[in-house]
Amino acid sequence: METWKTIDCKLLLDMPPYLKVEAHTIQLPDGRKLENWPWLISPDFINVVALTREGEYLCFRQTKYGVQGTTLAPVGGYVDAGEDPLAAAKRELLEETGYEAPHWENLGQFRVDGNRGNGTAHFFLAREAYPAAEIDADDLEEQVLLKLSRAEVEAAVQRGAFKVLPWQAVMALALLRW
Amino acid sequence: METWKTIDCKLLLDMPPYLKVEAHTIQLPDGRKLENWPWLISPDFINVVALTREGEYLCFRQTKYGVQGTTLAPVGGYVDAGEDPLAAAKRELLEETGYEAPHWENLGQFRVDGNRGNGTAHFFLAREAYPAAEIDADDLEEQVLLKLSRAEVEAAVQRGAFKVLPWQAVMALALLRW
Repeated sequence: METWKTIDCKLLLDMPPYLKVEAHTIQLPDGRKLENWPWLISPDFINVVALTREGEYLCFRQTKYGVQGTTLAPVGGYVDAGEDPLAAAKRELLEETGYEAPHWENLGQFRVDGNRGNGTAHFFLAREAYPAAEIDADDLEEQVLLKLSRAEVEAAVQRGAFKVLPWQAVMALALLRW
Repeated sequence: METWKTIDCKLLLDMPPYLKVEAHTIQLPDGRKLENWPWLISPDFINVVALTREGEYLCFRQTKYGVQGTTLAPVGGYVDAGEDPLAAAKRELLEETGYEAPHWENLGQFRVDGNRGNGTAHFFLAREAYPAAEIDADDLEEQVLLKLSRAEVEAAVQRGAFKVLPWQAVMALALLRW
């Protein structure tokens, strides 16, 4: 199977540092051309499922502009320019929860939108996490740190209580991994 | 916890039917204002994990513009304007695989981007699927229909072989549900 080729690329919108929109001209394997294909460029992000030494899951209850009401959430944030995704994951865990962890597993990296790009999600599982510092979050949203049992996380995933796609995804992947 | 309020909204880019970009002015609960917040409007989509009467998972190997190389994929597609997500799921299952199914479960609906919107993913599990028609897919990508065992799907999810975020998510959720 042959992949599609980008033969032209025009910047339509630039809202640094969060979003660029391009219009791509694409050539299909059979020679046909697609014009004006929307392509989104946004920062990669990480999400971390953090398990404490006591086997609790570090989560938040928070508001989020794109979500109605409150939602459960894992640790997460954008990867800074030039930053390694694992380093970003460790940084966000420490900033948002005050915890560090000695054991880290990669739960995969996934293109957010198969058609339009829109960045890549990098997922991690942190185990044996322990409190190491004060919380130093720079997030604008209100959030409350929770320590959930595995049974509580399983029930929350079954009812879709992590209302944002990458959050529900990383929680499900962590339950399948560990 | 109070959610953020949209107090102004300006259309920056319109690429029908796939994408609108708006700049929102947002008021935070503490009274501060955020200007020029990027907000993406794109069609909702469905993904379906379809299990045959024989317990096989209907998947594809395919190319996708936003993905390097080939990827595994579930049934999926955009919800048409005014269409019910479950109806879209049944339509896409029939078009893409030629299968119908008597048993459908909702695996949840999730905001794609908690900050920027960008549509909602609607996930379904279809069971006892059986061949009912010829394949009638209108997708531009090359794809090959596969019937995978549960063990093959579990291994594929563990290695991140569904390379697109909603696809990996729906497969993981199906494994946790059934």
